[in-house]
Amino acid sequence: MIIVMKSGAPTDEIEQICEEMRGRGFTPEKIVGSHKVVIGLVGETRALDPDAMQDVSPWVEKVLRVEKPFKRVSREYRHGEASEVKIPTLNGVVVIGEKYPLTVVAGPCSVENEEMIVETARRVKAAGASFLRGGAYKPRTSPYDFQGHGESGLDLLAAAREATGLGIITEVMDTADLEKVAEVADVVQIGARNMQNFPLLKKVGAQAKPVLLKRGMAATIDDWLMAAEYILSEGNTNVILCERGIRTFDRQYLRNTIDLAVIPVLRTLTHLPIMIDPSHGTGWSSYVPSMAKAAIAAGTDSLMIEVHPNPAKALSDGPQSLTPTQFDQLMKELSVMGHAVGRWPES
Amino acid sequence: MIIVMKSGAPTDEIEQICEEMRGRGFTPEKIVGSHKVVIGLVGETRALDPDAMQDVSPWVEKVLRVEKPFKRVSREYRHGEASEVKIPTLNGVVVIGEKYPLTVVAGPCSVENEEMIVETARRVKAAGASFLRGGAYKPRTSPYDFQGHGESGLDLLAAAREATGLGIITEVMDTADLEKVAEVADVVQIGARNMQNFPLLKKVGAQAKPVLLKRGMAATIDDWLMAAEYILSEGNTNVILCERGIRTFDRQYLRNTIDLAVIPVLRTLTHLPIMIDPSHGTGWSSYVPSMAKAAIAAGTDSLMIEVHPNPAKALSDGPQSLTPTQFDQLMKELSVMGHAVGRWPES
Amino acid sequence: MIIVMKSGAPTDEIEQICEEMRGRGFTPEKIVGSHKVVIGLVGETRALDPDAMQDVSPWVEKVLRVEKPFKRVSREYRHGEASEVKIPTLNGVVVIGEKYPLTVVAGPCSVENEEMIVETARRVKAAGASFLRGGAYKPRTSPYDFQGHGESGLDLLAAAREATGLGIITEVMDTADLEKVAEVADVVQIGARNMQNFPLLKKVGAQAKPVLLKRGMAATIDDWLMAAEYILSEGNTNVILCERGIRTFDRQYLRNTIDLAVIPVLRTLTHLPIMIDPSHGTGWSSYVPSMAKAAIAAGTDSLMIEVHPNPAKALSDGPQSLTPTQFDQLMKELSVMGHAVGRWPES
Amino acid sequence: MIIVMKSGAPTDEIEQICEEMRGRGFTPEKIVGSHKVVIGLVGETRALDPDAMQDVSPWVEKVLRVEKPFKRVSREYRHGEASEVKIPTLNGVVVIGEKYPLTVVAGPCSVENEEMIVETARRVKAAGASFLRGGAYKPRTSPYDFQGHGESGLDLLAAAREATGLGIITEVMDTADLEKVAEVADVVQIGARNMQNFPLLKKVGAQAKPVLLKRGMAATIDDWLMAAEYILSEGNTNVILCERGIRTFDRQYLRNTIDLAVIPVLRTLTHLPIMIDPSHGTGWSSYVPSMAKAAIAAGTDSLMIEVHPNPAKALSDGPQSLTPTQFDQLMKELSVMGHAVGRWPES
Repeated sequence: MIIVMKSGAPTDEIEQICEEMRGRGFTPEKIVGSHKVVIGLVGETRALDPDAMQDVSPWVEKVLRVEKPFKRVSREYRHGEASEVKIPTLNGVVVIGEKYPLTVVAGPCSVENEEMIVETARRVKAAGASFLRGGAYKPRTSPYDFQGHGESGLDLLAAAREATGLGIITEVMDTADLEKVAEVADVVQIGARNMQNFPLLKKVGAQAKPVLLKRGMAATIDDWLMAAEYILSEGNTNVILCERGIRTFDRQYLRNTIDLAVIPVLRTLTHLPIMIDPSHGTGWSSYVPSMAKAAIAAGTDSLMIEVHPNPAKALSDGPQSLTPTQFDQLMKELSVMGHAVGRWPES
Repeated sequence: MIIVMKSGAPTDEIEQICEEMRGRGFTPEKIVGSHKVVIGLVGETRALDPDAMQDVSPWVEKVLRVEKPFKRVSREYRHGEASEVKIPTLNGVVVIGEKYPLTVVAGPCSVENEEMIVETARRVKAAGASFLRGGAYKPRTSPYDFQGHGESGLDLLAAAREATGLGIITEVMDTADLEKVAEVADVVQIGARNMQNFPLLKKVGAQAKPVLLKRGMAATIDDWLMAAEYILSEGNTNVILCERGIRTFDRQYLRNTIDLAVIPVLRTLTHLPIMIDPSHGTGWSSYVPSMAKAAIAAGTDSLMIEVHPNPAKALSDGPQSLTPTQFDQLMKELSVMGHAVGRWPES
Repeated sequence: MIIVMKSGAPTDEIEQICEEMRGRGFTPEKIVGSHKVVIGLVGETRALDPDAMQDVSPWVEKVLRVEKPFKRVSREYRHGEASEVKIPTLNGVVVIGEKYPLTVVAGPCSVENEEMIVETARRVKAAGASFLRGGAYKPRTSPYDFQGHGESGLDLLAAAREATGLGIITEVMDTADLEKVAEVADVVQIGARNMQNFPLLKKVGAQAKPVLLKRGMAATIDDWLMAAEYILSEGNTNVILCERGIRTFDRQYLRNTIDLAVIPVLRTLTHLPIMIDPSHGTGWSSYVPSMAKAAIAAGTDSLMIEVHPNPAKALSDGPQSLTPTQFDQLMKELSVMGHAVGRWPES
Repeated sequence: MIIVMKSGAPTDEIEQICEEMRGRGFTPEKIVGSHKVVIGLVGETRALDPDAMQDVSPWVEKVLRVEKPFKRVSREYRHGEASEVKIPTLNGVVVIGEKYPLTVVAGPCSVENEEMIVETARRVKAAGASFLRGGAYKPRTSPYDFQGHGESGLDLLAAAREATGLGIITEVMDTADLEKVAEVADVVQIGARNMQNFPLLKKVGAQAKPVLLKRGMAATIDDWLMAAEYILSEGNTNVILCERGIRTFDRQYLRNTIDLAVIPVLRTLTHLPIMIDPSHGTGWSSYVPSMAKAAIAAGTDSLMIEVHPNPAKALSDGPQSLTPTQFDQLMKELSVMGHAVGRWPES
């Protein structure tokens, strides 16, 4: 249930309502917007009568029952305002959000060795990326495929950050590794296969680093938002939702079906910022540029693009990786689109 | 099998090869490109040896076996060149193709009455559309829903053309109605539910009007291209492929999943022009603008948008229809995107 | 809306209610069950108040609003009783229905020549089949594949009937061919690709032969029942619903995903009899036996099995066809299962 | 690569080959079948020439390259023979496998309290179940839903085992909980959402308790077998594959689409035993009996059925749970089917 306060409601009055709600066994959460204050009530609110709640204070504007299964991630929970995720990096704070310029994340699927990751970081930074992606722990369909360098891969990412100042986004697959990953990562990634790994969601929700939550291959939008809700319900509100393609009946020419219509849908449902990953979304580097441009046109807040110095020899996901030179070219094309929608960063 | 002739191959030589191939029981088709001539061989070519074919003439550059199940629709069949569909309308010839400005088709789901269809035609023309869409024969899930006005609906479309000069795109559902529909339609539409209605495909392939072939809800790209192949194999090469959303596991917020990645995929597989229908593709008018822009950014050749003077009272598909005023606004936004990709028509 | 009459309601009273309903603009349909009479009201009944309807006569037991989009096919429409389809054949009337022994339909995908179809008919009859299936008009993904012998194929089916007395089930693809097909067919089949070919549904609904309605590859159960509703709404109530596999994300080892759970679901929703086609449902002959047995265990009323004298040389669907010898063996296995559920025909 | 030894190959010869293979850097695994010995070679075998391998010893019958991505789980790896999983319980060893009588697992979704779990255990044991299922750690879509009692839930399962002697099957969701779960569980379950939680798969592969591996909602058969391969590659060969329904486009009447055709497909691909869960597979208790019977007819080795003393008040999955009385009735029906296929346990 959500209590929307009138404009100018005094702080005391708001505090008193929160107090009263705590007394009734609910957890009130105060969201201070630019015009109004909203109090979110978490707990067993089904039995509450919204009309009766109205009478709690003359400063209550209206009381809304949230019909959706998700609550803290819902747009109503912030009274319609978007949230943004602010990420401190060596190169300064980067903000991902609806009212900010586009952010580009780039890098290889896996961290392979120091030279390749540092070199890739330099190239993608020069082209305009703000974040380096790269997996130290890799979820692979086969146990016989390269599983990532694990802890030593994290060290290589740290070296790449040192060399370039880029923020680091890397995946955590196991609760046991979270502490180590969060030490290096500026944003902790939950992969598609772990989108409903609830113990992991709870743990990333209980630590401080922002979280990139990839959509599961067969996750409905509701499933995805509920997974985000797990993170927010543990206290971490810095969550970015990343679409990376869903599984459908046609996999002949495309590894996944990239579901770009989630962009306008998520805007109406949630305040959280959005990232699109056309590399996994299509599975083939030659289709990445058109889908990256489409994502910008559709209103995404950020993009994740796989870049590898030598895709033909990549230890994973080679076919969907751009070369650094292709990425340079892509960024030029994206800037045209980014300017057209008024969201390309000033250089 | 495809025989690529060297540049400058004499016409006589080409004719002689065609003659020889006819003698061997194949149907040769000559495609004259800007630089080269290609001969497509239709028939049971599996037993032919491409190397031996090379020796047929010194002017043969190379002989390619088409591995794909489709042949006439394949990009190789035209030696990599795009085809375009030229449609004469009262307002002049409109061309839909990769090297031409974007074309916009707009109008209601169903033709309801003369006033509404003429009024809608005027409004969408004023906003920049080149074609009016509108169903006289309507495929409806329920037999108790409005089934379209049929033949008299065609008369109303003819009136709208008379009033505005717009080209008319309307659906045919039954071979028995094709003649009547083709009399009025400038482009005959095959709907998603009939994409594999093979007798209908053959019949539209054997008449002269261009064909808009919508993708079936569960059609793979190969299925779709083979359906187009049916039309081309009967002689009609003027086919436009229209993506309108596929059926996937998540239908909570979207009627279909719009598969924009088909745009770059089709570019590599086929020479045929592409249309995107974000109205059916999403099912909700509020999601149409972002997907229309995304389609342009991804490289579509044309768009189909549902517009209804009063969506709340529409006899079909109201929720996904824009009002004329919303369509005006959308066209302004699309022009920004269209200019960014260099494909907006000069006004 | 459905009016359930009390047991023993006099015929006069029932007629009078029907008369009154006609007066109000509805089309009443009387369904005489073994205990009760039910009147189905077709028309715009949304505005009717069920409680007020109750007062129309003291013999009205209750008035139900049908919430489902389908009406005539709904189980409530027959007050919970199953319907059956009675098909006269040269060998006598065969009944397909929930309270009758299992019926087996067998035969090749396509009718290839007289010898093969007559020979196959003899073999499947000897093994216990009641119907011969075989396509004269074939829906094929590619225009270059065998399209069926058409009209002369129908003659061959007639010859097979003459030779064996088996009932004939064959597909119609075009409204223009219906008359010819219905002359030979004892049951007219609508294929999966035409499940929403509404003009065809209306035409088979307006003729007398029973109809086998295959489920579309991406048809929801509601879509499927609405397609059946089209047929019933034109007057033909003899419809059998045939599940033949749906399209899902995994097509590596199976051509389709056979959805056997529709059996118990359809039982609750509709009175129509059910057929299962494990040949198309799996796409591979080696998987047919286990799925045929499973279908019987789950409660199907009939089975359709592809049998070809020489699957390796079949002009279509070879990989999913059993040889006559394999079919003999299968029927023995099915009889064990059929006896276990008490539905194997007395020999 | 797989080396099939001739019948009667001497042990010394086999050992010597294994030695030589180790010398070349491979990990040989000896599988002793009833007639023959097979040596599986794990490692980078792509460069090996099967013909050259043949010459290693005159006792080599043939050398096969495994084309499938999975190796240890493949049927060829055991030279075509099924494996079985032997599970010691207080009531004796229960064997799940293709050549053994059917095993039934029953119990509630979640362990709620001691009385309910012990009572349920007694009832399902009396009806013929060999295992009790029940979740202490529950994966729930919403963070606000009951998450299971965790560690204290495990104590309640231990109490139910003490009271009835039934084997215990319960889910582990986090590597951090595995030790505790494995202390109580006779079979450790990996749920559908964790099917590609690779750290968890590795950890259950490195401990001794048998593993029930549920298929992910959008997992292809290859994905699923590769997940099992992770477990086997760590040394644990006691894996049971459990189908529990996949996600498809139609979710109106069924929570999932139960994919029974995996039964014959898995038989050809893998030696591992199979379990079917019609409760999750359909999502509604009224559809469970027909799908349980179908699974037996199709050849499953075991069934998992949800049973709750009071489904209407269940803390999770109530709609798909049978009452103990309904389960009694179901077991009677299943015994008819089980006898028909010759796999019902002697009582």
